[in-house]
Amino acid sequence: MAIKSSKTKDLTRLIRPEVRKLKAYFIDETSYRIKLDAMENPFSLPDDVKQEAIDAVKSAPFNRYPDPSAKRLKEAIAELWGIGTQRMVLGNGSDELIQAIILAFGGPIIIPVPTFALYEISAAVLAQHVVTIPLKKDFSLNTDKLLKKANDVKAKIIFLASPNNPTGNRFSDDAVLKILDKAKAAVVLDEAYFSFSNKTFLPMLKDYPNVIILRTLSKIGFAGLRIGVLTASPKIVGYLNKVRLPYNINILSQVAAEAALRRKDVLNRQISLLISARERLYNSLKQVDGVTAYPSETNFILIRTAIDASLIYEKLKESGILVKNLNRPGALANCLRVTVGTPDENNEFISSLRKILAAYRQT
Amino acid sequence: MAIKSSKTKDLTRLIRPEVRKLKAYFIDETSYRIKLDAMENPFSLPDDVKQEAIDAVKSAPFNRYPDPSAKRLKEAIAELWGIGTQRMVLGNGSDELIQAIILAFGGPIIIPVPTFALYEISAAVLAQHVVTIPLKKDFSLNTDKLLKKANDVKAKIIFLASPNNPTGNRFSDDAVLKILDKAKAAVVLDEAYFSFSNKTFLPMLKDYPNVIILRTLSKIGFAGLRIGVLTASPKIVGYLNKVRLPYNINILSQVAAEAALRRKDVLNRQISLLISARERLYNSLKQVDGVTAYPSETNFILIRTAIDASLIYEKLKESGILVKNLNRPGALANCLRVTVGTPDENNEFISSLRKILAAYRQT
Repeated sequence: MAIKSSKTKDLTRLIRPEVRKLKAYFIDETSYRIKLDAMENPFSLPDDVKQEAIDAVKSAPFNRYPDPSAKRLKEAIAELWGIGTQRMVLGNGSDELIQAIILAFGGPIIIPVPTFALYEISAAVLAQHVVTIPLKKDFSLNTDKLLKKANDVKAKIIFLASPNNPTGNRFSDDAVLKILDKAKAAVVLDEAYFSFSNKTFLPMLKDYPNVIILRTLSKIGFAGLRIGVLTASPKIVGYLNKVRLPYNINILSQVAAEAALRRKDVLNRQISLLISARERLYNSLKQVDGVTAYPSETNFILIRTAIDASLIYEKLKESGILVKNLNRPGALANCLRVTVGTPDENNEFISSLRKILAAYRQT
Repeated sequence: MAIKSSKTKDLTRLIRPEVRKLKAYFIDETSYRIKLDAMENPFSLPDDVKQEAIDAVKSAPFNRYPDPSAKRLKEAIAELWGIGTQRMVLGNGSDELIQAIILAFGGPIIIPVPTFALYEISAAVLAQHVVTIPLKKDFSLNTDKLLKKANDVKAKIIFLASPNNPTGNRFSDDAVLKILDKAKAAVVLDEAYFSFSNKTFLPMLKDYPNVIILRTLSKIGFAGLRIGVLTASPKIVGYLNKVRLPYNINILSQVAAEAALRRKDVLNRQISLLISARERLYNSLKQVDGVTAYPSETNFILIRTAIDASLIYEKLKESGILVKNLNRPGALANCLRVTVGTPDENNEFISSLRKILAAYRQT
């Protein structure tokens, strides 16, 4: 007994102080009728495409280790996005790639905020120093401040999500180019939402050896498969391949994604539908009293409400609709982020939102 | 152009020195007729079991993020191995769990060698200090030396693979208990091969809050799915769940493994077949002139050859058989590791080995 209790006490002291302080990445695991919180593509695959993926899974050997370099999946992605396979690293979601980048370069890390929470969380897990730089009021980059700070602290990495989550805007070419020209750090351009803006910084790759571009299959219909894509100079790719886990992409995701990606036509149709749905949703939101909707080049829209956003969030949940509550003092005060769903889901969201706001006005 | 070349020079300097020195984990990607290098289960799933897994994959939503806590898969594993789901963490293979442990506790890390290479590789990637302690000649633990060193350096983690890879033996209860009693570090008991020894340190969990037990589905037929299993005190489990990637197990592996694990009868039959095949292979190897075979409680056998093992390795490859070449000066001089395959594969391996040795004797 004496041993046991002293061991228990020791245990917490054994854990690294950075890890003791960590908050877990919050995920709402309740299931809702309409799920508009996680930037998932709401459309399923057509039956014939799903069947091609299932057939591929059926022939995959469950008992053998997967191809560590996922050659055939890389070829399918190369075909889809025009990225050379020799300049490509795949991850178990972009999440693993973000971790690999931080492991390869270390800190300090410059992060314009608000942005995707996992950059800061990963940096904390890996005990690397983070410097956050607030975006301007219009959510554009404060380029000069960012560059000054990056050079002052001798930053190793700058994370730029463009289009940015949760603000929805894409950073200007001028701002990004200036950072690429002046910064001495590795510059990560996270293009998770590029399919919905159809603009990319990919051409920068040939002139700037310090650029790393991230993509993901999660927003275009394959969040369940966990496939993140990175492209950078062969040199960076070489280092990141050493840092990532050797068998990081399981065989089922490799073959299912490879089969589905062959059907570019289907993916592109779903993306077009989502872009149209986003525009309709945005126009509807602009007409809702007490709501400010921000323009979006992504598959979600950031809104700011005139009344307490947390209250609206709870009321939406009561009506079976889950959005993301971002309400906290500062840049995102009274902000919610709503993922673009199917046209029906978007309509129901708009109509619930109107009702909630109307009920509030009457009290 | 001036910018470009100076950026290129900077780039290498930006990479952390530990990462610059890293060697990648070596995987032979050539395909061979008979693959006995990676401790894979050589048996496929029976058609009916495979179909159940495929049906599960078919109903899985590719477009939604996977369950971050993989509840149903955990329940299936709980049922299989008698591990409480509240005390369980799943990883993208044990590889991710090893990384998470090192992230949570940090170094120094004590590693008895030779053992599974990824402990040292992960420690290097995460820039944590490693102290290796050679096993004794009979591959048993040098317990006193290990404990003294662990306390001298104030070790945070001790990795013990039991049964051990690549030596095949299981460490004695006495040795492990002594380490658990005396060490102030977290003690990781990696039971990747426990199914083939049918002995486990799992009962230690209730008396020692600093024990972490690792298992994997890779050796029992699911290497392609990448599912590692960890059990420890709820406190450690809590920290590790914060450190691991939030969506680390893709939906396809979750549902396919859950379906297949329900068929315990099939898994146990395959394991029994492999244990019998191992015993036959071991007895055959003992009768081969110029070969020392070490006893094994795993699904592989370590052998030492009287002549240059690298030569034998190459000759085996020429005949279409891939084993693992461990030959390097020291404890593993002239050692090869052969995974237990199907009875036919094992026979062919033995007969090729005999031929190679006989040909050598004639020259």
